[in-house]
Amino acid sequence: MDERLAELKRRLGDVSDLRSASALLEWDQMVMMPHAGAAVRADRLATLERVAHERFVDDRIGELVEELRELETSLPHDSDDASLIRVTRRDWEKARRVPADLAARLTKVASEGMEGWVAARAANDYSAFRPWLDRQLELKLEYIACFEPTGEPYDILLEDFEPGTTTAEVRAVFERLEEELVPMIAAAAGDASGGIGDGPFSEEGQRSLGLAAMTAFGFDPESFRLDSTVHPFCSSFATSDIRVTTRYHARDLESLFSCMHEIGHGLYERGVSPALERTPLASGCSSGLHESQSRLWENVVGRSLPFCRWLHPQLVATFPDALGSLTLERFHAAINRVQPSFIRVDADEVTYGMHIILRFELEQELVAGTLSTTDLPDAWNARFAEYLGLAVPEDRLGVLQDVHWSCGLFGYFPTYQLGNVMSVQIWEAAKAALPGLDEQFAQGDFSGLGTWLRENLYSLGRKLTPKETLARVAGGPIDPEPYLRYLQSKHGASVTA
Amino acid sequence: MDERLAELKRRLGDVSDLRSASALLEWDQMVMMPHAGAAVRADRLATLERVAHERFVDDRIGELVEELRELETSLPHDSDDASLIRVTRRDWEKARRVPADLAARLTKVASEGMEGWVAARAANDYSAFRPWLDRQLELKLEYIACFEPTGEPYDILLEDFEPGTTTAEVRAVFERLEEELVPMIAAAAGDASGGIGDGPFSEEGQRSLGLAAMTAFGFDPESFRLDSTVHPFCSSFATSDIRVTTRYHARDLESLFSCMHEIGHGLYERGVSPALERTPLASGCSSGLHESQSRLWENVVGRSLPFCRWLHPQLVATFPDALGSLTLERFHAAINRVQPSFIRVDADEVTYGMHIILRFELEQELVAGTLSTTDLPDAWNARFAEYLGLAVPEDRLGVLQDVHWSCGLFGYFPTYQLGNVMSVQIWEAAKAALPGLDEQFAQGDFSGLGTWLRENLYSLGRKLTPKETLARVAGGPIDPEPYLRYLQSKHGASVTA
Repeated sequence: MDERLAELKRRLGDVSDLRSASALLEWDQMVMMPHAGAAVRADRLATLERVAHERFVDDRIGELVEELRELETSLPHDSDDASLIRVTRRDWEKARRVPADLAARLTKVASEGMEGWVAARAANDYSAFRPWLDRQLELKLEYIACFEPTGEPYDILLEDFEPGTTTAEVRAVFERLEEELVPMIAAAAGDASGGIGDGPFSEEGQRSLGLAAMTAFGFDPESFRLDSTVHPFCSSFATSDIRVTTRYHARDLESLFSCMHEIGHGLYERGVSPALERTPLASGCSSGLHESQSRLWENVVGRSLPFCRWLHPQLVATFPDALGSLTLERFHAAINRVQPSFIRVDADEVTYGMHIILRFELEQELVAGTLSTTDLPDAWNARFAEYLGLAVPEDRLGVLQDVHWSCGLFGYFPTYQLGNVMSVQIWEAAKAALPGLDEQFAQGDFSGLGTWLRENLYSLGRKLTPKETLARVAGGPIDPEPYLRYLQSKHGASVTA
Repeated sequence: MDERLAELKRRLGDVSDLRSASALLEWDQMVMMPHAGAAVRADRLATLERVAHERFVDDRIGELVEELRELETSLPHDSDDASLIRVTRRDWEKARRVPADLAARLTKVASEGMEGWVAARAANDYSAFRPWLDRQLELKLEYIACFEPTGEPYDILLEDFEPGTTTAEVRAVFERLEEELVPMIAAAAGDASGGIGDGPFSEEGQRSLGLAAMTAFGFDPESFRLDSTVHPFCSSFATSDIRVTTRYHARDLESLFSCMHEIGHGLYERGVSPALERTPLASGCSSGLHESQSRLWENVVGRSLPFCRWLHPQLVATFPDALGSLTLERFHAAINRVQPSFIRVDADEVTYGMHIILRFELEQELVAGTLSTTDLPDAWNARFAEYLGLAVPEDRLGVLQDVHWSCGLFGYFPTYQLGNVMSVQIWEAAKAALPGLDEQFAQGDFSGLGTWLRENLYSLGRKLTPKETLARVAGGPIDPEPYLRYLQSKHGASVTA
């Protein structure tokens, strides 16, 4: 191997190790850490981030990727090594724009802000959270100023999560969605489907059911673990060390769907080619593509009738008292019921998009300075009433519900909805390639789909751009029409039934 | 503040953060990590160790501690800042002798070796473990060669755990102990005390009892957590983030005593002055002094009659079926029964010393090359029969029982017994200063002892040398006589009863 390539890989391996350690400290903070560890943990994280950043932006990495141009062009575009050189060059040029000191402050305030959010949410106290939000916004403006101005400042934030996609492109997709979602939500006022009742559902039963579904999808205790947290998430520290979390409520089965959601993220990370381990390519391609997989497994698979055929007997056996009389048809209708509600992560597939559009708009206004954090709760509540027809009774059910802003994740929310859109594009491609999926799902066999996704999407990691990756797996650019057809065929029917 | 001192603290803070991250990755590997994460985890740890080492041995730190000599001498010897400069200089000069590459290999092989040990122990297969042991010994010789020769190569290994104490000093203490322990063990053949029976003891009951004892000693869920592992240990990631682990067997109450042991380590870390946080002084002073505290809480307190008076009613209430008829006197006798056994961590206070003396001798021979790893199990078994009168039936109960050698901890075992010796010296000092401890213990009040230990020992962290620290808290140098008197008064009596 070219010695310069070996040196590049060695240097990138160090950065990967430092960043992975940082990710483990964050996972630990959310899942395991005693509360009083928070202050020092913020220092630890800031240092790891600063050291990783310093090592990544080292002049030598820039020299190496220039010296390796010839090797890069001699190799196929999608080869591991050409991709490593190309993606590293792009990442390096971007990272060079952010001073190490700012990167460290972003990390430190993210860690502290998250603790602040946990406390503020528990106390339903937006005023306790607002100073953290102000600090985050200041830092975000400082961050935006590191880059060449584009059409809109929000483009810079979006670029971190969906590289190559502009605010205008997202807006176009969202406008098309809004056209269809608003009348669908209005029509859903007539949805007469019942729920699945309010349990009680034991934590033990929920955990075993969540594990059963995840195991059928590809969870394996040799490489995965499941824990509980305030806000479910997935994190990985190697392609063979994946952590998913969920939360249990005695009165609903949210945990089952959050398990199926997070394992979708986890399967993506698990499926990245092991040859990419300890490089910047060893993760999912973008937030939107990541979300396409959590949503594919949670919704497209996990709320489908064939999946319900397999799960329903286990569900009834797990909760005979609460669900003994629940038929397959009523279960399927219940988990697909369209009904405006306050919490985004609990929202059905139709109303979900409006939760995201609301956040997408508010974020742009906060960043532009046309909305102050003082006025944010009122703005949230007014828009929520307009889009979803509900009056938010307390901030815990409104502006305080998500962890994202507390740790600086502005520009992230829209990728959730892009993920929904892409999930159906990818699903249609898989379905066209794999006959008999419905029958397999009804038997609890999801391996055909899992293998296809691994081969056609997961294994690529970050080798290609999101747009290249989507084109490769789904045959074209982002397109809201398959998603809208999917919603219409599923929910158009149930609403009029 | 002197700008150079501020710079020193900033640089040491970074090193502390990197090392703490490394410690968290190790804790996670032992407690949480899915098995398949091990290979990549070893790389992560090696990188963190290498980066921390590189940053610590930076020329600039050496310059700073030289430039700060004047400030150091102007301050009291035990002031935080003078101690920081002095201890950093000593640590830096030592660390400069170890090449970064060797430090990284030591860490990587420790991580891999530990995985190897877990598998070999589970399979009772010494031959699977031997290659790891050989690699560790090679690395240890390479490590020893980094330092000026002293009287014995083993001194170099001991120095890492009990700085300032020589092999000859340890040998002198151990020879004195052996003189007394051998006849005590022989006499114990007549110990007619019963055990506490073989349960079954539910894991839930054991956990709640372990937590009750630890909470009485100072465990607080805001700053501590308890988990289960193969080998119990304590680790800390801040003075306010302490993790203890234990293991549960249905047929004994080992977990209770391992909880009291590990919380002793944890209280020491928790009690370090917060002003020392993120410096090299923010931990216990030496392995031996650390062990003095685990043993003080586990044995001197936890096996005392006053403590039993408090715990006994809770014990019986927790396990009414298994222990309903166990009297206080029989409980106290049972947990102080002297009886040779195979596993060091289960050994009583009298036989324990011989487990350590055996390891101390074998380690010196392995390092000197007078014993090969091929012959090690036979040597272990022969010496075990000689010292403890038992024939080791399988390596799991012999040479494979401890994690230490797998992760390179040679020179560590003797500090366990030094800890036992010092625990009684410190206990005698506390008892002299604090009247009424027995009555307080019988009421479940351990706060007087805890506060005294925090003020007189824990808060010092690593500011003073182990010998200075022991002199400060116990009034003199290491002395086996108080420990021998303690054993005689406790076990001399029970044996002849």
